[in-house]
Amino acid sequence: MSFTKGLSAFPITPMNANGRVDTPALQRLVAPLAAAKVDSIGLLGSTGSYPFLTRDERRRATDAAIGEVNGRVPVLVGIGALRLDEVIHLARDAKAAGAAAGLLAPVSYTPLTESEVFELFRAVAGECGLPLVIYDNFATTHFKFTPELIGRIARIPGVVAVKGTAPEASAAADHLAQMRKAVPAGFSVGYAGDWNSMETLLAGGDAWYCVAAGLFPNSCLAIARAAQAGDADEARKLNAAMQPLWDLFKQHSSLRVVYAAADIMGITDAKPPRPVLPLSDASQDKVAAVLKELKLS
Amino acid sequence: MSFTKGLSAFPITPMNANGRVDTPALQRLVAPLAAAKVDSIGLLGSTGSYPFLTRDERRRATDAAIGEVNGRVPVLVGIGALRLDEVIHLARDAKAAGAAAGLLAPVSYTPLTESEVFELFRAVAGECGLPLVIYDNFATTHFKFTPELIGRIARIPGVVAVKGTAPEASAAADHLAQMRKAVPAGFSVGYAGDWNSMETLLAGGDAWYCVAAGLFPNSCLAIARAAQAGDADEARKLNAAMQPLWDLFKQHSSLRVVYAAADIMGITDAKPPRPVLPLSDASQDKVAAVLKELKLS
Repeated sequence: MSFTKGLSAFPITPMNANGRVDTPALQRLVAPLAAAKVDSIGLLGSTGSYPFLTRDERRRATDAAIGEVNGRVPVLVGIGALRLDEVIHLARDAKAAGAAAGLLAPVSYTPLTESEVFELFRAVAGECGLPLVIYDNFATTHFKFTPELIGRIARIPGVVAVKGTAPEASAAADHLAQMRKAVPAGFSVGYAGDWNSMETLLAGGDAWYCVAAGLFPNSCLAIARAAQAGDADEARKLNAAMQPLWDLFKQHSSLRVVYAAADIMGITDAKPPRPVLPLSDASQDKVAAVLKELKLS
Repeated sequence: MSFTKGLSAFPITPMNANGRVDTPALQRLVAPLAAAKVDSIGLLGSTGSYPFLTRDERRRATDAAIGEVNGRVPVLVGIGALRLDEVIHLARDAKAAGAAAGLLAPVSYTPLTESEVFELFRAVAGECGLPLVIYDNFATTHFKFTPELIGRIARIPGVVAVKGTAPEASAAADHLAQMRKAVPAGFSVGYAGDWNSMETLLAGGDAWYCVAAGLFPNSCLAIARAAQAGDADEARKLNAAMQPLWDLFKQHSSLRVVYAAADIMGITDAKPPRPVLPLSDASQDKVAAVLKELKLS
């Protein structure tokens, strides 16, 4: 599946304090991603604050972004929600809007069992022709996938990829080998977590689901292309140059940092959805200094 | 505040697969709680699956339950949601319906900082005359409150109580002493987690926020009254008799067990909201056996 290979760029979803999406601002964010020819766009990911948006707003965002991209790049759309019936509605909406796949995280309040998560994927994959990407993000869902469970879900027809969380660089190859053993041949194994992801591509991972690429597609494509070509020296050099940005992501979360960056860059002054707060003025100054220093594009 | 003392009973909120609340079934659940004279009812708590319900359905549930209780017992209502604006709407709805207080948990997807949680409470307390209970439940919110943060939030006007998670029995007195040091004099400190809560009452805790009391108010009142009277032998004897139920709660979560119990008791055959699944037939048989053995009421 070409839409689960390479660099996937995850933009924010600008919205006002009432959760209304600013669709022109969203289009200003996705247009340069399509122009830069990232391999896919990850709309309404965690960076896109999907759980904070109603079904109507998610549909508005999806329609606006897919309209802007206009077939140039496949668009993956986050379809996670707390309720199964809502997930199914969102999957149908995404499919109708022309999404290439749905990103499905086991969003939870009541902690879920392994059976519940397996049955969630089975119910959604069976209800709708939309290919599904397993969205494994412990920091937000607090559900711990085992490789064995991912292997079982990967065998449900219609489930095509896993988006895991990149381990520390030194563990990338081992982690990927463990995942490859768990999933069927040809199943896409990709990673998120910008500061550790480059090494997973070098180790042979299929995709980098990347927050920074939602604002800096060219800078991230340069790293990804070097890693995909097996040019470890170049990939590591380019990635090391991004370290000041990765450090900010680790310190404040990538979400809060990219909101500040989008504002500094003049794209949108939208704030993260409260209770999440914007960075302090002092931290925003640091983001501005790093953007200036790195000359990202 | 009398509504933050003693035994607070937390019923389930029966709903169908589309998230529509069965208000007659909810009234069948709350009527015996009012009749038993529990000290308060905790509507739309975690056991009441509040995050799985829309604002409209939460309003329907609140109106139906408060109507049924008809002033006999104060009703606390869960007002947590992922978005601040939604929490404020829910607080106003609860106040308009006649709730005695709002239970506010820092529901999160993006992990929240201490400042964000403090500002959440300040914004909600300032927007609406509804007294607030700090709902500290790490297992569902994954936000870790420090005693210091609870102490700061406890000083926001309108915040009247904390509902913590009961520590192991041997740590109850130390935990309570630490909390008392953090909060102002007279601030209510209560606990949830049925299998450990009795010891917190014995240690001088103000309230037991109790799932089992949502179905078995008299059995739980007997334990609570003995503990409140300082009769440790009697309280421990009665609590120890409940151990088979506490063991099921620990094994399967209290939520899944009380859904099965309400069905076995003929009150409602509503299922937990999917992706949460009902207990297996074998586990339901165990619940039935425990209910039969314990003769709860």
